[in-house]
Amino acid sequence: MKPIQVGLLGIGTVGSGVFNVLQRNQEEIRRRAGRGIEITMVADLDVARARAVVGEGIQVVNDARAIIANPDIDIVIELIGGYGIARALVLEAIAAGKHVVTANKALLAVHGTEIFAAASAKGVMVAFEAAVAGGIPIIKALREGLTANRIQWIAGIINGTTNFILSEMRDKGLDFDVVLKEAQRLGYAEADPTFDIEGVDAAHKVTLMSAIAFGIPVQFDKAYVEGITKLGAADIKYAEQLGYRIKLLGITKRADKGVELRVHPSLVPAKRLIANVEGAMNAVVVQGDAVGSTLYYGKGAGSEPTASAVIADLVDIARLHTADPEHRVPHLAFQANTLADAMGTLPLLPMSEVVTSYYLRLRVADQAGVLAKVTGLLAEAGVSIDAVLQREADEVGGEGSTQTDLIILTHDTREGTMDAVIAQMQALPTVLAPITRIRKEELN
Amino acid sequence: MKPIQVGLLGIGTVGSGVFNVLQRNQEEIRRRAGRGIEITMVADLDVARARAVVGEGIQVVNDARAIIANPDIDIVIELIGGYGIARALVLEAIAAGKHVVTANKALLAVHGTEIFAAASAKGVMVAFEAAVAGGIPIIKALREGLTANRIQWIAGIINGTTNFILSEMRDKGLDFDVVLKEAQRLGYAEADPTFDIEGVDAAHKVTLMSAIAFGIPVQFDKAYVEGITKLGAADIKYAEQLGYRIKLLGITKRADKGVELRVHPSLVPAKRLIANVEGAMNAVVVQGDAVGSTLYYGKGAGSEPTASAVIADLVDIARLHTADPEHRVPHLAFQANTLADAMGTLPLLPMSEVVTSYYLRLRVADQAGVLAKVTGLLAEAGVSIDAVLQREADEVGGEGSTQTDLIILTHDTREGTMDAVIAQMQALPTVLAPITRIRKEELN
Repeated sequence: MKPIQVGLLGIGTVGSGVFNVLQRNQEEIRRRAGRGIEITMVADLDVARARAVVGEGIQVVNDARAIIANPDIDIVIELIGGYGIARALVLEAIAAGKHVVTANKALLAVHGTEIFAAASAKGVMVAFEAAVAGGIPIIKALREGLTANRIQWIAGIINGTTNFILSEMRDKGLDFDVVLKEAQRLGYAEADPTFDIEGVDAAHKVTLMSAIAFGIPVQFDKAYVEGITKLGAADIKYAEQLGYRIKLLGITKRADKGVELRVHPSLVPAKRLIANVEGAMNAVVVQGDAVGSTLYYGKGAGSEPTASAVIADLVDIARLHTADPEHRVPHLAFQANTLADAMGTLPLLPMSEVVTSYYLRLRVADQAGVLAKVTGLLAEAGVSIDAVLQREADEVGGEGSTQTDLIILTHDTREGTMDAVIAQMQALPTVLAPITRIRKEELN
Repeated sequence: MKPIQVGLLGIGTVGSGVFNVLQRNQEEIRRRAGRGIEITMVADLDVARARAVVGEGIQVVNDARAIIANPDIDIVIELIGGYGIARALVLEAIAAGKHVVTANKALLAVHGTEIFAAASAKGVMVAFEAAVAGGIPIIKALREGLTANRIQWIAGIINGTTNFILSEMRDKGLDFDVVLKEAQRLGYAEADPTFDIEGVDAAHKVTLMSAIAFGIPVQFDKAYVEGITKLGAADIKYAEQLGYRIKLLGITKRADKGVELRVHPSLVPAKRLIANVEGAMNAVVVQGDAVGSTLYYGKGAGSEPTASAVIADLVDIARLHTADPEHRVPHLAFQANTLADAMGTLPLLPMSEVVTSYYLRLRVADQAGVLAKVTGLLAEAGVSIDAVLQREADEVGGEGSTQTDLIILTHDTREGTMDAVIAQMQALPTVLAPITRIRKEELN
């Protein structure tokens, strides 16, 4: 059988990885796929760089549309990124009857509904394992491996940059700014790290997982997104003393009235496996009603780990494109006509309706009655306290200090209630600085 | 489209789980599969028990062949276990044109070649996600998620009974026999625990993973199998002091001259994620050349976790049975006509050819020159020492003791070489008891 012909749009870090791994492992991949998989055309604005990667014998163009127009191309890999030209090209490739493989989480989290609908109408596959958690086959696990389950929640470390920064902050007791600079120097953070450190990248990814887990459309615009830029070394240290680690988690959860979709720093019990995921590694915990808790761990970024996911999608298409398009694996795990929103059943919850527990740090005057005032306000609001840690003033502010830190862990509380109590506590004259609030997830 | 009709052979713990989860989550499963999946016939020798599980409205028979003979049945689930009648029924179901789902690791590890060949000839699928690591979708990850990779090695905690026992031994400092009794009382170990504690169950599972990872036929008869019955609390304690945990690992590895396939207790660095997998949980680490290290964690046994895997296989078949049988996902990940053994390239290595590192414990006379003698023998054989721990005699044997424990960690050594040195050390008059040898895996 003749090899599958693949056109590659964009040959940067990931594209080079795809090309190199396909070359290096071509014999094993052919034995698995039942036929060869060959990149025969590459499009990149930098033709010279592209040519340097692929060598001779492969057509290199600077116009992506030349690939889409080529009737011999079976699959188009989109590695351009972003929402603009990438969206147009993916839709054009679908319209031309090509299967599409993409690593573009931003594109799918925002325009997934349009793209998947176009693909279904045309009977082609759009595969995106590389869009979430790099080389970890988490999309496959959710969409195929756990189909028996009513998924209850997913919580993942799905951004390597921020996990690297948090690991270094904890390890070395350094503050965010210092570690960010080190991460940039080492190549773990980009020159403009906004998408990573503000949680946007993680929100794109958890949006995709949420859709697949619960059978709802992608709804990135409704995600709650909070990054790690305001975390201090002190909170990481206090969390540790209370038996927790702080991780940036992407969380999606089935609640009574809808689905939670949120990204924010979270305290996680130090004894959980996911709390021990360090450096730039990724891990995702999935809780299903039948299987219980499962965890998936590996490299979430990088040239060859991401290429591993892109190529797995190519092999999937080679193996499965002949299956009845009406029944083969749906893009979002559920048949398109059964997505829950179409039935008005599973709205995304606003953050004020989320129920979780909290870590609060209050910088307070070191005088009698402060703790009673603060805990009184919590009690009035019906917020139940799990643990309190009050530091010696000398330890916090140095010899003779008149200020200290009061740390409170709460039991489950509605976020809206917590917002109101925090405002009340903030108004107390003995509370001397903005209150730090970090959510806490037991993940059990 | 009419529902897929499923016949269930054997409705014990796992079978009941399959029935209950399919019922409970039928709506979500239908939305994922694109059609209903219904168990319409159940065969069990204990008809009354089967009837009690399934209620009315489903045909219950005591003759499995009545299911195979029913032309309306699309898929047969085999949950009988063992090599005997199960093998005959699976082959008959295939001959009758049924797809087969099985959790029977023993059957496939021994008779897989025959069964997969029959299925390929008939154009039906044999799915077995539940055969390895229960609810963890590790077969899918290896067969589909990591197809880009040249797999380098796999190491897994794939037997919950033994991991529970080892966790308890470490936690409570108890000996094997005591903990085994507790495990039996709690239902974590069977009345006859031989298959678990002697490593046979783990060997069945790693045999299947080895075939899928390396594209070789199943060869259970060539696996090296060693259980945990000889492990003492002392070794677990010493390992801990040296920064290691002891786990029963199923290991398969691509070496220069062939493939390693082995099950035995192993020291693993305590900082590795897999070293922190406790109780009856399972975890598998897979090392691929592109993706690097990935880990998969979850419940490896139990009614509903195993049912989760069985039902995922049902959904896979519902989605994919219409794909071209020549190219859809091969049973062992590689196309049958490209399995390596057929090309005589990848033999399984005998244990004497395995290269790994070692933990040795020698009970020695507490007198001058013993350490020099022992390390002299190692040096002569070219075995390089990584660490030595010599205990105070009083600590080991009590006040006034004349014996002590000498613990040695070695660097990588060929097992055949180590066998010979151990024999020489054992012959020393100052070595007072049988030498304990436990292999050590760095897993990096």
